[in-house]
Amino acid sequence: MGEYVDPPELAAFAALDQDRLQRRGYPEAVYCEGKTPQQLSVIAAAVRDRPGVTLFTRAGPLHAEAVVAELPGAFHDTPSGLLAWPREPPAPTGGLVVVVCAGTSDLPVAREAQLVAEFLGRATELVVDVGVAGLHRVLGRLDVLRRARVIVVVAGMDGALPGVIAGLVSAPVIAVPTSVGYGAAFGGIAALLTMLNACAPGVGVVNIDNGYGAGHLAAQIAAPVDAP
Amino acid sequence: MGEYVDPPELAAFAALDQDRLQRRGYPEAVYCEGKTPQQLSVIAAAVRDRPGVTLFTRAGPLHAEAVVAELPGAFHDTPSGLLAWPREPPAPTGGLVVVVCAGTSDLPVAREAQLVAEFLGRATELVVDVGVAGLHRVLGRLDVLRRARVIVVVAGMDGALPGVIAGLVSAPVIAVPTSVGYGAAFGGIAALLTMLNACAPGVGVVNIDNGYGAGHLAAQIAAPVDAP
Amino acid sequence: MGEYVDPPELAAFAALDQDRLQRRGYPEAVYCEGKTPQQLSVIAAAVRDRPGVTLFTRAGPLHAEAVVAELPGAFHDTPSGLLAWPREPPAPTGGLVVVVCAGTSDLPVAREAQLVAEFLGRATELVVDVGVAGLHRVLGRLDVLRRARVIVVVAGMDGALPGVIAGLVSAPVIAVPTSVGYGAAFGGIAALLTMLNACAPGVGVVNIDNGYGAGHLAAQIAAPVDAP
Amino acid sequence: MGEYVDPPELAAFAALDQDRLQRRGYPEAVYCEGKTPQQLSVIAAAVRDRPGVTLFTRAGPLHAEAVVAELPGAFHDTPSGLLAWPREPPAPTGGLVVVVCAGTSDLPVAREAQLVAEFLGRATELVVDVGVAGLHRVLGRLDVLRRARVIVVVAGMDGALPGVIAGLVSAPVIAVPTSVGYGAAFGGIAALLTMLNACAPGVGVVNIDNGYGAGHLAAQIAAPVDAP
Amino acid sequence: MGEYVDPPELAAFAALDQDRLQRRGYPEAVYCEGKTPQQLSVIAAAVRDRPGVTLFTRAGPLHAEAVVAELPGAFHDTPSGLLAWPREPPAPTGGLVVVVCAGTSDLPVAREAQLVAEFLGRATELVVDVGVAGLHRVLGRLDVLRRARVIVVVAGMDGALPGVIAGLVSAPVIAVPTSVGYGAAFGGIAALLTMLNACAPGVGVVNIDNGYGAGHLAAQIAAPVDAP
Amino acid sequence: MGEYVDPPELAAFAALDQDRLQRRGYPEAVYCEGKTPQQLSVIAAAVRDRPGVTLFTRAGPLHAEAVVAELPGAFHDTPSGLLAWPREPPAPTGGLVVVVCAGTSDLPVAREAQLVAEFLGRATELVVDVGVAGLHRVLGRLDVLRRARVIVVVAGMDGALPGVIAGLVSAPVIAVPTSVGYGAAFGGIAALLTMLNACAPGVGVVNIDNGYGAGHLAAQIAAPVDAP
Amino acid sequence: MGEYVDPPELAAFAALDQDRLQRRGYPEAVYCEGKTPQQLSVIAAAVRDRPGVTLFTRAGPLHAEAVVAELPGAFHDTPSGLLAWPREPPAPTGGLVVVVCAGTSDLPVAREAQLVAEFLGRATELVVDVGVAGLHRVLGRLDVLRRARVIVVVAGMDGALPGVIAGLVSAPVIAVPTSVGYGAAFGGIAALLTMLNACAPGVGVVNIDNGYGAGHLAAQIAAPVDAP
Amino acid sequence: MGEYVDPPELAAFAALDQDRLQRRGYPEAVYCEGKTPQQLSVIAAAVRDRPGVTLFTRAGPLHAEAVVAELPGAFHDTPSGLLAWPREPPAPTGGLVVVVCAGTSDLPVAREAQLVAEFLGRATELVVDVGVAGLHRVLGRLDVLRRARVIVVVAGMDGALPGVIAGLVSAPVIAVPTSVGYGAAFGGIAALLTMLNACAPGVGVVNIDNGYGAGHLAAQIAAPVDAP
Repeated sequence: MGEYVDPPELAAFAALDQDRLQRRGYPEAVYCEGKTPQQLSVIAAAVRDRPGVTLFTRAGPLHAEAVVAELPGAFHDTPSGLLAWPREPPAPTGGLVVVVCAGTSDLPVAREAQLVAEFLGRATELVVDVGVAGLHRVLGRLDVLRRARVIVVVAGMDGALPGVIAGLVSAPVIAVPTSVGYGAAFGGIAALLTMLNACAPGVGVVNIDNGYGAGHLAAQIAAPVDAP
Repeated sequence: MGEYVDPPELAAFAALDQDRLQRRGYPEAVYCEGKTPQQLSVIAAAVRDRPGVTLFTRAGPLHAEAVVAELPGAFHDTPSGLLAWPREPPAPTGGLVVVVCAGTSDLPVAREAQLVAEFLGRATELVVDVGVAGLHRVLGRLDVLRRARVIVVVAGMDGALPGVIAGLVSAPVIAVPTSVGYGAAFGGIAALLTMLNACAPGVGVVNIDNGYGAGHLAAQIAAPVDAP
Repeated sequence: MGEYVDPPELAAFAALDQDRLQRRGYPEAVYCEGKTPQQLSVIAAAVRDRPGVTLFTRAGPLHAEAVVAELPGAFHDTPSGLLAWPREPPAPTGGLVVVVCAGTSDLPVAREAQLVAEFLGRATELVVDVGVAGLHRVLGRLDVLRRARVIVVVAGMDGALPGVIAGLVSAPVIAVPTSVGYGAAFGGIAALLTMLNACAPGVGVVNIDNGYGAGHLAAQIAAPVDAP
Repeated sequence: MGEYVDPPELAAFAALDQDRLQRRGYPEAVYCEGKTPQQLSVIAAAVRDRPGVTLFTRAGPLHAEAVVAELPGAFHDTPSGLLAWPREPPAPTGGLVVVVCAGTSDLPVAREAQLVAEFLGRATELVVDVGVAGLHRVLGRLDVLRRARVIVVVAGMDGALPGVIAGLVSAPVIAVPTSVGYGAAFGGIAALLTMLNACAPGVGVVNIDNGYGAGHLAAQIAAPVDAP
Repeated sequence: MGEYVDPPELAAFAALDQDRLQRRGYPEAVYCEGKTPQQLSVIAAAVRDRPGVTLFTRAGPLHAEAVVAELPGAFHDTPSGLLAWPREPPAPTGGLVVVVCAGTSDLPVAREAQLVAEFLGRATELVVDVGVAGLHRVLGRLDVLRRARVIVVVAGMDGALPGVIAGLVSAPVIAVPTSVGYGAAFGGIAALLTMLNACAPGVGVVNIDNGYGAGHLAAQIAAPVDAP
Repeated sequence: MGEYVDPPELAAFAALDQDRLQRRGYPEAVYCEGKTPQQLSVIAAAVRDRPGVTLFTRAGPLHAEAVVAELPGAFHDTPSGLLAWPREPPAPTGGLVVVVCAGTSDLPVAREAQLVAEFLGRATELVVDVGVAGLHRVLGRLDVLRRARVIVVVAGMDGALPGVIAGLVSAPVIAVPTSVGYGAAFGGIAALLTMLNACAPGVGVVNIDNGYGAGHLAAQIAAPVDAP
Repeated sequence: MGEYVDPPELAAFAALDQDRLQRRGYPEAVYCEGKTPQQLSVIAAAVRDRPGVTLFTRAGPLHAEAVVAELPGAFHDTPSGLLAWPREPPAPTGGLVVVVCAGTSDLPVAREAQLVAEFLGRATELVVDVGVAGLHRVLGRLDVLRRARVIVVVAGMDGALPGVIAGLVSAPVIAVPTSVGYGAAFGGIAALLTMLNACAPGVGVVNIDNGYGAGHLAAQIAAPVDAP
Repeated sequence: MGEYVDPPELAAFAALDQDRLQRRGYPEAVYCEGKTPQQLSVIAAAVRDRPGVTLFTRAGPLHAEAVVAELPGAFHDTPSGLLAWPREPPAPTGGLVVVVCAGTSDLPVAREAQLVAEFLGRATELVVDVGVAGLHRVLGRLDVLRRARVIVVVAGMDGALPGVIAGLVSAPVIAVPTSVGYGAAFGGIAALLTMLNACAPGVGVVNIDNGYGAGHLAAQIAAPVDAP
């Protein structure tokens, strides 16, 4: 991929990982927080004609505006701050990724996970509002849970959910604690600890609010066996 | 109760709360950790002829020996370190206290809670090994859970259990985190936080490993309405 | 309750726990933080004609506006962010819930606890500004404290209060730490730890600022013996 | 599987999750810490004739002795405290599980992960002592790393290793922090946080020292696509 | 004080603060933890003929043995690990130091504070076992509390006590959290935070278990006005 | 003081500790954070004619406006948020209180301590900007430090200062950590821990940013011996 | 330097460490956070004619405006909040300081370190965006890394970078954790711990976001051997 | 160095970083904690004839015995657990490393730092027992401190010392917190935080008790300018 050389104005603040797609089979994502809109403009212009998908994560309104100005028609999910270019995800291969969202307030993170998995090439389904406080809601969705090759469970106040689900299925579970909650939720720490200590084996945990990481990991787990 | 005056050798290190029974309706308990066996001998002798029950909590082997030497035939549950004098609990009144124990390793704390509730005058039942990783084990005991006036749930690695149970019943739940677990269990902190953040309302939490406090609180909640 | 089917636009982000009233004896509450006003509008419309009370907790001004637009005349306590529909609490049954508020700054949480207990069917009384720094203020209210079936104690800077009160009465105490305070108060952690370590047995603790949970638990404890 | 009824002496402290194999496709494991040798004897006897593998984790010397007395010839790895019955793992199916061990002191946890994956039916390879301080050691093993369907990375003082490896391969990485280290390692917390914040996506984290959980999760991820 | 030159073998590991008495008005104390008995022998020999009192704090049995071998007849309080040479405290001057000990298990720390204040020249009184759970025990000792020039309150499980006492008197209060307790006591952190957040002003806090520091500070506060 | 009855509108949210002056010798202070301006108006009006000083602490601009509207001419120090009524401090008695301020950013807290000590009846002096990084600045002020009956040391980034000063004088030291600093200062926790672990004995610590508590405690320590 | 006497209006809040240049060989820096613009005006005026460089760190817009008004033409780097007077750094002496910046969001801190080292007299180079997730980016810059006398590594989400670099070179490494990141990054704590536990020896860590301290320390390490 | 091939029995658990000397200019050290004596025997034998120094750190008695059995006459400092082979350090080059030890209990860590610097080729001096509580002890050693090219300051209870020293000299300071102390020392965390927040710039911090890392870093800083 040597023909895609970073423009000089980019080199002052960033060095794109251009061969990540070749090395890992998955493209680079641009983390927007802490970058200026000007920096994002330069990056967006630099990836416009690159092969493969480019993701922009945790983009605020000004970030998104700068990206879309350079990449008109880019996909943009405002609540999760995710942008993707080009705007259409690839045709899905591999197994099904099911994303379970414990509460309505966890939706932006769940959507980020789902969209990332889709843009990395997987089919997905989203199950919403199935907290432990009403077990029948979980048990009522066992059919879809059991069709999954991997399940992403996103929860802030309901950190128990990944363990409950892992105990019901054979698929691996990726748990995403969110910073939803108050008081002794400690911005997601309580959910994180709950998930790390889940009794049922088969749960791997990612960083608080890290829908991107969960979606990426899910896409890898559900990848077709002979390909990334 | 003025006729029961503390002996002079007791006054050097302790002042028994002799009228607690009258003031609160529940007798004092003697916390043994950090006391010398000699100090416990003096205390045990001082309570020998007091009316009502005296509990000794968190007694190690030397503590227990000192107490039993002064109070022969006292009740003694070794795993939980609980002693009681006199050895027979009162006839039960009020509602049923159900104690749920998540894992076998949590049993000593669960037993402490159960025994304290019994010695404070309540009928109890114990349900063992009903972790969230196998939900059918919880669901299979709904009958006894729904007979309870109050449920004590004791769990270390399975901090999600109190919330799951609270979501299934109308009785209040007392959650007792235990220090069972390893790594990010942090000696009970993870379970404590999980319980404080339980999605289902109706859960009150006590200190880590505090079976005594849970049993006491359960006895108060299940007290006959017109009496403590 | 199958006749109350969630409208389709609700299913995209929420699944109401419609049979919680039947299963637990207490109705569902809608946690507003992190929900959009649009989502709350849909939910409010969906519960308009449901039997029983619906509570909305931690509602900000925009949340409240959206709810009231759908449920005109709904009860709304601004400081605590609580709304209730229909606006009148049921006639009280069971025992008395006394809510003790340590400092004026703790009032919104105390009010939330009191109102929730009322809307779940209990009679309540509120005692204000009775900190440990002036013990006579606590001791001067022993009459009302001793009439309670359960006492909720709300305190941020005065985490010692639940233990002091528990030592004076036979009723169980629910302790609610608040995030009031500064410095080493750590947003309620200091009060939380103080309460978990209260010397006097008979104290169950809920999450920081969780007036809703405390009021719900109090309503359960003070429920009439033969009914939830 | 109803014909395998728990013996009555077991019911006093444990309820085996007998149908987990059927429900999840993976058998139950018995966590030994906190159990008495007597309790383990009863459990071991109860599983002697059960179909499928039974694992015993975190067994101390007395635990192991009790298990082996009931299950002569059981597999026993002393450093990791793992026992398995029957002693031979099943013939491997699915993809390759590569376990990477950062330092010699991390070996017991790495071995636990490897052995669990094998007893759950996967082929495994172990790569030892490949810390970040000498990158050439990692880079020199890229061949085996790139053959893996999933990589388990076990590290205490070298928490950076999972992220470095994830950046080099397309397979998902399971990171296992260990409690190896001193000072600001905080018993594994530093490694845990390093792993949760790994820059390279594709890393799921399990509890500190949780080789069992990592091996289980790896077995699920590398399962043959049409079977658990 | 130049005539007291450290012996050469001392200089290899310690430099006594010989003029502290002159500079601050209070003598140096030798902290024993982490020192070898051999090192303590050398130090003890070096102070044998120095003017004024020398204290040795937190001495284990081997430490104490080494000191007493060099300083026969030295004062030794085993539970607190305090030694003093010469063995008699000076005649008291200044105001009264009252040391309040919440629970029997806190006694060693309380004794350390009391003894240090005495060896630094103050009259002291000790009040034992006056926890907040039985307020009448505190209120019954108001007479001695109100005679104090300064009050040291030592408490582990009863961190609320300093604030309660400060609210009843005009004297300043020094609060000493102890590591007595379990679970969420966190080795004294809970008591420390409770004391730092005490509602009643007039409380200064020292390190957990720091009876020495509390006794020293009390001696300074209660010093005669015209002299240290 | 029975003739000063709280007005009825006050009783809804506050119960003034009117006899604190009599009981403790120091008047009550009104903590403003978390109170509404309306509540402060009612309180200010209620204390207008009370004997003795009333302090209002941590008042924001709206709080201050409400107080001054009821108590025209009240003393107001904006940076520290302290108000006092009546506006003149009493004539000083007892010993000198020296307040040392480590950095310019710590000034508001230092001023609060100084002003509170003055309004409680002590003479004070303020020493500014004497950090440990330039020891000569501390050593150059030894004269005033040695005239003090008690020294208050206020420091955020320079938590070492109280210990350095305590090692140079015979007076007791009150250490006030401030939330000044960034990164691993953790909002004052680093300074707090540094102060609690100060090597030199004679340091008592108050809550982070608690200038009020430090000034109050200093006033008590420096009180004339025969009076509060 | 006695001829530079602080003006009287400065003495009310600050005491400049005027002889630091003479004592340490490096000039004082003025920390702006928490100072008012007025205070900075007075300080800026006071240093206008002092010999040597004066740095102003962590200046917000109003701080910078006040400084520049007094020192027209002063150097000002807005993103890092650094100002310097006079505006030209001295001619470089000693060894090369290489500053490595892990991610674009870490640039302000990296620039602060680089600029401080330059103004203290060192030659510098900046290497950007060389995270561990793409090792080839680090390995591609080995040439410049190996020319350094000391390397400053600035990283928030990529705390592993300093250890990786230290393992590749002989120069000492100064690690600067930044508060860039989210969730379990905990405002820089994760990066801080990762760096403190770096496997490769040769890493010294400074406070989170402390570019100033890192640049200063680098300048000292790279100082010409016979001069500061 | 290809001629030194690891023996096959070593490869099962370790991969020596044989070319570290060539790559970094400093030899590898073998961390002993968590290794078995058998493993150390194999490693010791493998390095017997390697060129350059090999260090063994944190060796317990059994570790040391195993090493010395293979490397008779190896250098061994028991308190710090350091072994070196061959037993004589190289002739010193570069600048002077001064190691300052705050308290006698910190000596093992200080000795480790000093010895490592010597075995890596630097001249060293050790200054003992110079705590901040008696500033004259620090000020009395300014001569040796000012001769240093780099100063290592080792302190547990006296975390303020590195900042005080850094404020007095032009050399860089490496701060080593130790786990000496009790209560709120939190096993070295308090000292660590104090050091990270030291007011005086010029302080780099290493892990708690990490004398090895400090000695290594000091050797690098004080290296002759033209050589590692």
